Amino acid sequence: MRENKYDDDRFFAAYSRFPRSVEGLRAAGEWPELQKLLPDFAGKRVLDIGCGFGWHCIYAAEQGAASVLGIDLSEKMLAVAREKTDFPQVTYRCMAMEEIDFPPQAFEAVISSLVFHYTPDFADICRRIGRCLVPGGDLVFSVEHPVFTAQGPQAWSVDGEGCRSHWPVDRYFDEGRREALFLGERVTKYHRTLTTYLNTLLQTGFALTGVVEPRPAAHLLDTVPGMRDELRRPMMLLVSAKKDG
Amino acid sequence: MRENKYDDDRFFAAYSRFPRSVEGLRAAGEWPELQKLLPDFAGKRVLDIGCGFGWHCIYAAEQGAASVLGIDLSEKMLAVAREKTDFPQVTYRCMAMEEIDFPPQAFEAVISSLVFHYTPDFADICRRIGRCLVPGGDLVFSVEHPVFTAQGPQAWSVDGEGCRSHWPVDRYFDEGRREALFLGERVTKYHRTLTTYLNTLLQTGFALTGVVEPRPAAHLLDTVPGMRDELRRPMMLLVSAKKDG
Repeated sequence: MRENKYDDDRFFAAYSRFPRSVEGLRAAGEWPELQKLLPDFAGKRVLDIGCGFGWHCIYAAEQGAASVLGIDLSEKMLAVAREKTDFPQVTYRCMAMEEIDFPPQAFEAVISSLVFHYTPDFADICRRIGRCLVPGGDLVFSVEHPVFTAQGPQAWSVDGEGCRSHWPVDRYFDEGRREALFLGERVTKYHRTLTTYLNTLLQTGFALTGVVEPRPAAHLLDTVPGMRDELRRPMMLLVSAKKDG
Repeated sequence: MRENKYDDDRFFAAYSRFPRSVEGLRAAGEWPELQKLLPDFAGKRVLDIGCGFGWHCIYAAEQGAASVLGIDLSEKMLAVAREKTDFPQVTYRCMAMEEIDFPPQAFEAVISSLVFHYTPDFADICRRIGRCLVPGGDLVFSVEHPVFTAQGPQAWSVDGEGCRSHWPVDRYFDEGRREALFLGERVTKYHRTLTTYLNTLLQTGFALTGVVEPRPAAHLLDTVPGMRDELRRPMMLLVSAKKDG
């Protein structure tokens, strides 16, 4: 069975207190950059893979999407998303990304925020997305950056005084499972190289239209403790791509 | 004046003893991956930016290029390249990449190996290349990976026993000048993010066709001391792109 940490009571409670869980997109440091990569949603059928609390689904609806389907593995997350969402054109479904099997050309746009590093088989996900996207359709996603996932523990190297000295990179070309600490819990993630992320897209029928390592939004740099350290190493990778056709 | 470390006697002597200087492409760990990204050179006019000892120029000629122009800042390197090259269709010229100003559509293919991290203005180089490439023409290059250039000194973090514990990343989003140690000499390089490398290409009229972080060639892993550590962090970035047209 797929790991579903987000339905674990303790983890869910911790994640629910996370700034981006409480305040939504504006508390997400990468949002201004991700927003720039998004297509015009007006009139489009949109799929959000790993929609969580539904922030991006609501955004797509606000931008005029004809329909938005948010899928997530966590019933607890979806319950909150349903509660929060007023748009009738937004629907939610509990399912894994590995089960995506929608009809051909069911969507004009697919988005996904910080989810693909939880799947062991990225190529399979790309093929599943490709099948349900129209030709010329858009895929925009964020993942944890390979520099962030490579070593495993996802913790800064510290000097003798406990100060962050640098970010450690190791095992970069050793793709696969990592056990990271997140919100005090062990979470399984899958490290893959940048090469794998980008060339897998090229090899499964997508053209790359944007690749961005976001810096935190300027308004967060001086208001969130420790945020300036986010300028010291990349933490996320944002990619926009277009299905060939 | 542009720094030209390669005409410094001591540095030139050290670089000339480097495996890739003596044995050429087969001693370059990234060559098998770079080779895969190269276009078919048959009948093409090719520009090699920072050609050094001319190994890639000779390869392009062997593959049937109609003409190959190798440019480099170092007269010493070019003297060796001329000495080594038997193909009359290969010519060499001493000039900086920042001075590229060839006629429009002068080339069908542009290649460059480990040179662009020496220029402070990558966008300017891309525009210069774009102007002298035919529509649909190919650009293939390697650079030192942003993970490799970010912190500056380009040295492993070591533990108490002097063993390599991991690769340090720092100052990632602080683009610009770095002083690295290379072959015992201080060399000025310019760090830029992966975002800058890839999006600059997209914004100057190129489509991305391949992005590869090469692992060392298998035959080097067990024969060159320390080579297995090259699996622990990316050192180079290879990019293939096509001029829009």
